[in-house]
Amino acid sequence: MSASAITVIGSVAFDTLETPAGRADDELGGAATHFAVAASFFAPVSLVAPVGDDFPPAARDYLLSRGIDCSGLETRPGKTFRWHGRYHEDMNKRDTLHLDLGVFAGFTPSIGDAAKRAPYVFLGTIDPALQANVLEQVGRPRLVGLDTMTHWIAEARKPLEALLSRVDLLLINDEEARQLAEESNLVKAARRILALGAKRVLVKRGEYGAILFSPDSVFAVPAFPLEVVFDPTGAGDTFAGGLMGWLAASGADDEAALRRGIVYGTVLASFVVEDFGGRRMRSLTREHIEQRYRQFVALTQF
Amino acid sequence: MSASAITVIGSVAFDTLETPAGRADDELGGAATHFAVAASFFAPVSLVAPVGDDFPPAARDYLLSRGIDCSGLETRPGKTFRWHGRYHEDMNKRDTLHLDLGVFAGFTPSIGDAAKRAPYVFLGTIDPALQANVLEQVGRPRLVGLDTMTHWIAEARKPLEALLSRVDLLLINDEEARQLAEESNLVKAARRILALGAKRVLVKRGEYGAILFSPDSVFAVPAFPLEVVFDPTGAGDTFAGGLMGWLAASGADDEAALRRGIVYGTVLASFVVEDFGGRRMRSLTREHIEQRYRQFVALTQF
Repeated sequence: MSASAITVIGSVAFDTLETPAGRADDELGGAATHFAVAASFFAPVSLVAPVGDDFPPAARDYLLSRGIDCSGLETRPGKTFRWHGRYHEDMNKRDTLHLDLGVFAGFTPSIGDAAKRAPYVFLGTIDPALQANVLEQVGRPRLVGLDTMTHWIAEARKPLEALLSRVDLLLINDEEARQLAEESNLVKAARRILALGAKRVLVKRGEYGAILFSPDSVFAVPAFPLEVVFDPTGAGDTFAGGLMGWLAASGADDEAALRRGIVYGTVLASFVVEDFGGRRMRSLTREHIEQRYRQFVALTQF
Repeated sequence: MSASAITVIGSVAFDTLETPAGRADDELGGAATHFAVAASFFAPVSLVAPVGDDFPPAARDYLLSRGIDCSGLETRPGKTFRWHGRYHEDMNKRDTLHLDLGVFAGFTPSIGDAAKRAPYVFLGTIDPALQANVLEQVGRPRLVGLDTMTHWIAEARKPLEALLSRVDLLLINDEEARQLAEESNLVKAARRILALGAKRVLVKRGEYGAILFSPDSVFAVPAFPLEVVFDPTGAGDTFAGGLMGWLAASGADDEAALRRGIVYGTVLASFVVEDFGGRRMRSLTREHIEQRYRQFVALTQF
């Protein structure tokens, strides 16, 4: 099998979603799914994740239809990760009503040959020890992106910090950045994380956009202002996938490519929130993406 | 006296400020002061506000030193407006410890001849009935900007709504926009406010930047990411003053000028938060402003 441009390691799940707009049951989701689907609009992706023996062929067929290499989508005895969440009227807040890690609980990623050769690697939110294990397996990719969450910052700070010097792009939200740096000012927090070893820090701010901190520059973008936010699930992972997909397609990792990639990520995220889970991506085309990219240029130029 | 380019009507006050960085007593403040000082970096301003007979000559001298026409700074028997506020560690939150409207309580603006001829008029947050009264006095300026607050939206909705069709630029924050439109989605809220008659709505989002909604376009900018936010008092008014000052200096009111003006407003606001109240503006120069404007271009271009 030919090598993919991007490998993503993380979760594949089924989500039951309740938002002020309604409810959807058993939507194909999980961070790695959202990432892979978004990235697949730009470049070939290998998806490494465990699924249970309940994982339906139709879901795998959909991923294959997007050109995603599913040889790392490992079926294990047991159930696929399931999450049931309910968003508040203010969709920045949500409650987890039910969570069953299923086969994701015992996940130790094993990276196949095609996935190992991908120059762009994205380590979704898993135990930092497993993220380190993946990095041992893949050798020296051109660019390593890493996501984490408050749970791992609190419970596995040392292994996480030890990873940072091997990370080209840390992709976290404001709360996580503040927690990791133990600093409430976001700019200072990002500087501390850079000092811990990450080459760049990209802070996701949801409806407020994103900020990229590099050792000698800062780049800030607003989010796309949307009249309808149907379901925010997967927005951050779709953002990351759009960004990494664009980088992989352009074969670059410089500041200019990162900035343009962040705008593509913003554009992809603006689509995914228009319907439940990842539904909107099924009818999305590259032309829709380019059209909204041009709208984003018009939205921000002065 | 020659006509000013901008007239601002609103409050002049003395503020006692407590922030996580420290405390300052009796700082010259008030929305109209912050607005006028910011605008004065670009164009001549007339300031219309009441002050008490305790207003010190040094404060008036400072305003005059900025080229601000103080003939509308009317001294009345009694005390100048005083506010004592304390910010939380999260500086988006603050408590009012003490508030004494003083002579501002009985304020009925009387606009002098120089101020009447200004083509750009900014109506700071006062009773909408008084804002309407000012509009009667000034005739037909080229551009009318208007600010308001949750108190007036709740207590004087009808007179406020009646004003909107005479407003070129409504300048409010997210919370006020949602309250005025009775709509939680910000884009929908802005559309409703445009439907109520305002020609454009500029939503201030503090550390998250600003969004300008016009009938056929949207413009979004991030705020300047700052390592030190000493005191946010006056940031929104300084933003408005920088914007209106730039517009008045360029003699324009088209979309391109508004966008550039919003960036100048963003730049001015990024300075004022660096020290207590309006202190930072005393040492600010136009060259500092232009330098940070160029930094803002570098911050946002892709």
